[in-house]
Amino acid sequence: MKLLEEKILKDGKAIGSEIVKVDNFLNHQLDVKIMDEMGKEIARLFAGRGVNKILTVEASGIAIACAAAMHMDCVPVVFAKKAAPSTMNEEFLAAEARSFTKGTVSLLRVAKKYIAPKDVILIVDDFLATGEASLALVDIAHQGGAKVAGFTAAIEKQWQGGAEKLRAQGVDVQSLAVIREIRDGQIEFA
Amino acid sequence: MKLLEEKILKDGKAIGSEIVKVDNFLNHQLDVKIMDEMGKEIARLFAGRGVNKILTVEASGIAIACAAAMHMDCVPVVFAKKAAPSTMNEEFLAAEARSFTKGTVSLLRVAKKYIAPKDVILIVDDFLATGEASLALVDIAHQGGAKVAGFTAAIEKQWQGGAEKLRAQGVDVQSLAVIREIRDGQIEFA
Repeated sequence: MKLLEEKILKDGKAIGSEIVKVDNFLNHQLDVKIMDEMGKEIARLFAGRGVNKILTVEASGIAIACAAAMHMDCVPVVFAKKAAPSTMNEEFLAAEARSFTKGTVSLLRVAKKYIAPKDVILIVDDFLATGEASLALVDIAHQGGAKVAGFTAAIEKQWQGGAEKLRAQGVDVQSLAVIREIRDGQIEFA
Repeated sequence: MKLLEEKILKDGKAIGSEIVKVDNFLNHQLDVKIMDEMGKEIARLFAGRGVNKILTVEASGIAIACAAAMHMDCVPVVFAKKAAPSTMNEEFLAAEARSFTKGTVSLLRVAKKYIAPKDVILIVDDFLATGEASLALVDIAHQGGAKVAGFTAAIEKQWQGGAEKLRAQGVDVQSLAVIREIRDGQIEFA
């Protein structure tokens, strides 16, 4: 997605050879105009697949997932939680995920009632890096008996191998901006 | 907001006399159509105040804040974080907040560069209960020298006193659905 690549080059920042900092439009301050454009592109990429639900994980995936849902007949968005609130007292599906940027392991949880065998689920996240969170979401969808229509991230860090792991599980991965590598502080797209 | 009150009565659930469970459209599964309607109403309520930024807190506030921003000339949304990722290495503004539903205390953080004295900030959240998170967000806005144009929550639990505390600080509070009390399992609006 050309617009997103341009935005990353303009407003993003490479830190070392591993981190792309996009907190000024994607994961701390949010640019809702570009979110909307990303949502439109996600709807185009996964049109005709019968998607009836979008699954993401708190917090940074929520804005993109909602933008996509607005362009996909307002299908419901479900976000996995990293901590269980006291109001989450029913059965839930869960899978572990390590956060690349936080260095922590979270148990991602989704109330069981929100994933059903009839569901055709699109998984949406802000980043695809090593794929830990994404694989956990696929696992949760499968635990609920749902079909996974595909996965999309705003930004894929190709060299970290997440897309490969997802594809090995039969998941169709279509990220909006795929970064091949960061070389000498320069972001290079695939 | 009539539509939201009807939705709460239809899909929400009172638990005891303190908790309103709305995880099927507001804070676990998200109904983006009603989010959009809420965003429209927030834009109407705070029109003409010169709002140039929306401040919320992860995770459940994000969807509503983005919906409001879409109807307010796409002003940027900034969400306070409850944990500091490794990519958040700059100066930040912070304030403590206790979570009513999780029973935990979080340090809410916003990178200093995203709040400026020129900002006129609308604070948006999913719930207004005791007001802890909301007061922390007001504190953060003021630490950054910004003006607070007002506060809106999707659901205000009036008897828990948060709105009073905010108003005592001069904040204009306009919630979308104000629940006066839960009596015998019935939700009663103000």
